[in-house]
Amino acid sequence: MTLLMKAKEAADQEYETIRAKVEELKTHGIQPHMATILVEGDPASAYYAKAKQRIAEKLGVQFTLHDFKAEVTEAEVLQLVAKLNQDPKVHGIMLELPLPKQISAAKIEQAISPQKDVDGVTPANKLATVTGEAGLYPATPQACIKLLKHYGYSLEGKNVTLVGRGQTVGMPLFHLLQQENATVTVCHSRTPDIASHLSHAEIAFVAVGRAEVVNKQMVHGNLVIIDAGINEADGKMVGDVATDVADHVQAISPVPGGVGTLTTAILYENLLKAMEIQCEEADKHE
Amino acid sequence: MTLLMKAKEAADQEYETIRAKVEELKTHGIQPHMATILVEGDPASAYYAKAKQRIAEKLGVQFTLHDFKAEVTEAEVLQLVAKLNQDPKVHGIMLELPLPKQISAAKIEQAISPQKDVDGVTPANKLATVTGEAGLYPATPQACIKLLKHYGYSLEGKNVTLVGRGQTVGMPLFHLLQQENATVTVCHSRTPDIASHLSHAEIAFVAVGRAEVVNKQMVHGNLVIIDAGINEADGKMVGDVATDVADHVQAISPVPGGVGTLTTAILYENLLKAMEIQCEEADKHE
Repeated sequence: MTLLMKAKEAADQEYETIRAKVEELKTHGIQPHMATILVEGDPASAYYAKAKQRIAEKLGVQFTLHDFKAEVTEAEVLQLVAKLNQDPKVHGIMLELPLPKQISAAKIEQAISPQKDVDGVTPANKLATVTGEAGLYPATPQACIKLLKHYGYSLEGKNVTLVGRGQTVGMPLFHLLQQENATVTVCHSRTPDIASHLSHAEIAFVAVGRAEVVNKQMVHGNLVIIDAGINEADGKMVGDVATDVADHVQAISPVPGGVGTLTTAILYENLLKAMEIQCEEADKHE
Repeated sequence: MTLLMKAKEAADQEYETIRAKVEELKTHGIQPHMATILVEGDPASAYYAKAKQRIAEKLGVQFTLHDFKAEVTEAEVLQLVAKLNQDPKVHGIMLELPLPKQISAAKIEQAISPQKDVDGVTPANKLATVTGEAGLYPATPQACIKLLKHYGYSLEGKNVTLVGRGQTVGMPLFHLLQQENATVTVCHSRTPDIASHLSHAEIAFVAVGRAEVVNKQMVHGNLVIIDAGINEADGKMVGDVATDVADHVQAISPVPGGVGTLTTAILYENLLKAMEIQCEEADKHE
């Protein structure tokens, strides 16, 4: 019987911890504040931003949605980022992607203060993820590992196959897996035979961003799979792993209800971590 | 019969190309200028700095050795770096490691201008190596790949085992191997059975910094090995791979006379690349 690694329980535990900390901060007159930047044009990102807002309300976190019209200029978005960076009452800045083509996501990301960068998109935090130094790491790769551990699996000394090497999930996940001391093989679109690598793996992470990258012919009954994909197929949300794989492996995370569910929780965990970093920095300058 | 992948020929080809470019630059009244920072205390780094100086003379490159006494302060070294960064007649800055314990190598590296950073040690160039963006990549990982290619081996679609995940060689090499579209497995000190991974590999890179990390029981007759290690054992320079492995593989790079020999050439190739980047930047600001 395949273990379905749903994220709800792990996410609820996270939220419980976060809510308690938010309560405690409020007794000191501080309310955590997340600012989200959304540019009109992609219905999915508008949906995700609203979902994060509902979570913020449940957590007692202040949430400000800065939504721009589709024709906004890069300069206007950069101006907002500069204002949010300066505002001591804003603790976290999130940028919803994709952006319209007149705006460079890289430029906006580079402008965010690393101390408020709750999704680890700034150059400083990307480099920290690589070197293992302190910083704010991207949420989705963290969620992948946390979900696996929640179900009692360890990564230490394990043979891991990572399918996908994108800069948003695959590569930072590779580096976080180094911190866990896994032995990682990175497969990608130019790997001739991904199945042969999966045959040696105890644990697999799939983060390509395309449906059915892994099918049931490619897996084995002892494999544990974390599916980080979110794709739309025939109006339904599906992962990167074909749905019928679930019957042929030891354990797998579902989509929806898996990595994505925990990612939102990690963003708020990072918000609290960001506040700690901001406090330390403020102390240094006193 | 094992192929011994000596680097002399590849290095000589590099030097020929560099020398021709240096000659051409001189007809425009420009002489490439490498500045090397050396702090007293490690005989090996003093030896390497001198070796680089001899190469510079052969190439027609100006070479300035800034050697400090062992008791120099961090502030003094930083002051020199700032001066070299500003000096338009200095095109490349190299820092010999190790440094005495009162000086943080990370701090000095961060202070070097990314445009003069011929060994890819600054945060900007480290990140460029990860993302594949333009920049100055570290010399030793580049030398590993160049040596392999010089002997006609391709990395595209190959199964590669990388032994070692250090920030200086292993990790940047991993990222450069992504650009070559190899499928890479990264082994390290916490990998239980490195031999099992080598058994699936067509090409192996070994960059741990310890002698005899790979021995003849761990390899097979079709394996091609690049040995990036430089260690001292009984007064002799040896790599990370045991010397008797050479009889049990298809091809291997020797130590000395392998990766290290080509690394010096790459440093001067990076110097010329640095000059191009500096020209482009100067044009932008005109």
